[in-house]
Amino acid sequence: MPKKNAFYAQSGGVTAVINASACGTIETARKHKDKIGKVYAGRNGIIGALREELIDTSKESRAAIHGLLTTPSGAFGSCRHKMKSIEENRAEYERLIEVFKAHNIGYFFYNGGGDSADTCLKVSQLSEAMGYPLQAIHIPKTIDNDLPLTDNCPGFGSVAKYIAISTREAALDVASMCESSTKVFILEVMGRHAGWIAAAGGLAAEQEGDAPHIILFPEIAFNREKFLAKVKRTVKKHGFCVIVASEGAQYKDGTFLAESGLKDAFGHSQLGGLAPNLAQMVKDELGYKYHWAVADYLQRSARHIASQTDVDQAYAVGEAAVEMALAGKNAVMPAIVRGKGKRYRWSIGEVPLADVANVEKMMPRNFITRDGFNITDAARDYLEPLIQGEAYPDYKRGMPKYVRLKNEMVPKKLKKSFKI
Amino acid sequence: MPKKNAFYAQSGGVTAVINASACGTIETARKHKDKIGKVYAGRNGIIGALREELIDTSKESRAAIHGLLTTPSGAFGSCRHKMKSIEENRAEYERLIEVFKAHNIGYFFYNGGGDSADTCLKVSQLSEAMGYPLQAIHIPKTIDNDLPLTDNCPGFGSVAKYIAISTREAALDVASMCESSTKVFILEVMGRHAGWIAAAGGLAAEQEGDAPHIILFPEIAFNREKFLAKVKRTVKKHGFCVIVASEGAQYKDGTFLAESGLKDAFGHSQLGGLAPNLAQMVKDELGYKYHWAVADYLQRSARHIASQTDVDQAYAVGEAAVEMALAGKNAVMPAIVRGKGKRYRWSIGEVPLADVANVEKMMPRNFITRDGFNITDAARDYLEPLIQGEAYPDYKRGMPKYVRLKNEMVPKKLKKSFKI
Repeated sequence: MPKKNAFYAQSGGVTAVINASACGTIETARKHKDKIGKVYAGRNGIIGALREELIDTSKESRAAIHGLLTTPSGAFGSCRHKMKSIEENRAEYERLIEVFKAHNIGYFFYNGGGDSADTCLKVSQLSEAMGYPLQAIHIPKTIDNDLPLTDNCPGFGSVAKYIAISTREAALDVASMCESSTKVFILEVMGRHAGWIAAAGGLAAEQEGDAPHIILFPEIAFNREKFLAKVKRTVKKHGFCVIVASEGAQYKDGTFLAESGLKDAFGHSQLGGLAPNLAQMVKDELGYKYHWAVADYLQRSARHIASQTDVDQAYAVGEAAVEMALAGKNAVMPAIVRGKGKRYRWSIGEVPLADVANVEKMMPRNFITRDGFNITDAARDYLEPLIQGEAYPDYKRGMPKYVRLKNEMVPKKLKKSFKI
Repeated sequence: MPKKNAFYAQSGGVTAVINASACGTIETARKHKDKIGKVYAGRNGIIGALREELIDTSKESRAAIHGLLTTPSGAFGSCRHKMKSIEENRAEYERLIEVFKAHNIGYFFYNGGGDSADTCLKVSQLSEAMGYPLQAIHIPKTIDNDLPLTDNCPGFGSVAKYIAISTREAALDVASMCESSTKVFILEVMGRHAGWIAAAGGLAAEQEGDAPHIILFPEIAFNREKFLAKVKRTVKKHGFCVIVASEGAQYKDGTFLAESGLKDAFGHSQLGGLAPNLAQMVKDELGYKYHWAVADYLQRSARHIASQTDVDQAYAVGEAAVEMALAGKNAVMPAIVRGKGKRYRWSIGEVPLADVANVEKMMPRNFITRDGFNITDAARDYLEPLIQGEAYPDYKRGMPKYVRLKNEMVPKKLKKSFKI
């Protein structure tokens, strides 16, 4: 049997360490040239497979591939294309198989979150049914940390570290100015459905009374009066108040705090943003001087202060995906397993994709304090190991050295183009 | 003559390295115990002197004082209290002298920007006139980089490094997602009057076509049509457009772009913010999907990625201030002098405060490209040396170790309290 090529694609929002998974995948595949031919990467994720836009990673030097370990974001491009169910869009799945067939691809490594786990599973099932069996392995990635059956998700630890550090640093700023200036500072962080990232802001505190004084989770219905009372109490007690707010914070009825309800001169509704809306609320009701920050993409691309643990795990799941493929596995995902015992240890386990797809892992209630405004020791015990170690990139002339790949395309073999 | 004590105060917005100047000042003073008694620090800046709230830094261990070198923000507190002219508020100046006299203070080290340089000069003049001569030395600090007669200002280099790195990292994120998602990304940075910080974003680019594609400076009148045309051209050419916008960006008539002109349900005007306003403009006119970030305090407290050059210079101006005092100098400021020649070298010079006070250094026009949307090679040559070196703090359990001082107060000697 002639050896098969592999296809690797990145999916959804990128992270500071998704390229480390690519590095783990490609470097490990290169060690097994007797069994795996070339590793092709989808240009802009799965779209690249549908359009037959495949990047030939064999054209990249060893140094370039190794550079992925320290380069944030998606080196081959990613996408927000969600594949519908097989019933709704069988043509897309068939096209995928057709492209894989044309390029002798026998291994499908899909690096993403919940949606891509689901796609990965469907591709595996359909390829079987179509008589072109593929080994489909999902490589976990999401800053949202919401995949089930893995202790945590690669990508999350680095965002957590960035948010924890930024919260501590900004809090020192506010603390030193609050006597005559800003009294309330709000940091808006990502996490539309789950409060994992906001929770990480809680790691900024070392002792009772430390910032952040308030964390707003999507899991806890926002109560305006309780919130304002807490802000007021905190300013009275500590002189200032630092708030870490998840973009998904919402009222009991599901209305997001980010919705401002304002319209501009053209009648377009103003998107506002959570942080400025909260700031305005504080100003209107309590009169405090405020500042706010929205970290947005900065938080998920901050490779300059990535967690070493996160980088190691991101690499390891890429490596394990290839090893699972070589062991004949299909429709599985390497998962991070936390060891028992006080000292943090982790290893790589294996979970069936059928159990991963379409399950969202929320923050357990016991990770959030009773008043709903902070994290508990249980949360701290869970989170802290994930931000250990500083995986600094190399620098050149004061700036981090991030690789640029050549991204040479594989010549197309199919006549038909495919519209998506 | 009994030896005199010293008074040190931090003024205005804090930086990632203002404590490094405090470290330089205190460590150097401690080396000259034969000439300088104790170093008292103003609690919350000059307010501390007026209220006779003096912190006794001699109570802090050597390790704690040395820890200031790697701790951001103002360890003794800072303030936004601007002292009026002597004619308008002679009582404040007299109170200051009275407090200095009561605590045998002969050296006044004032660590701040343009306003504090002015105050420092006036205190020196008035103390002379009141028969209690003080040696007043100004220690430069401002992220705005707008002090004259010094090549650059301590505090700026670290913001510049943070913004340059964040721009490069976020740009990689947008580049990898733009095919199916965000096409325009806006990073709002500080700098109400001068575009130095926004200019630093330009260091993210390594080659033609690299992000940032557009920089908005306060120095260049904002032209909506030209801006939108440039965004459109950039997206067509590169697939995405990254914009670094100074919070001080304004229209020709002086209206800030940050003013949204919107009112909420209570009739309060909405502050909006520059980045969301620009984003809305792009969405309305061009329909592109956008994201925006506002770094706010994160940028000036980001000690985790401070510039080594900046830290070294911040320490050196503190050290030099004490040496100048010991040399009998008065009403002067240590300045950073750039050496001639291709390789960057710097040394500490001395400038009279009379020449520093009330002069704002703007970006030279030849630092901005002809179209007003980017930086020139001249700007790059000026900026690049200032971000060299990574002055990493130590870490403990995944978080930077920033010191907490005891901040023990000196017992008050004056009966009268002073209202400010």
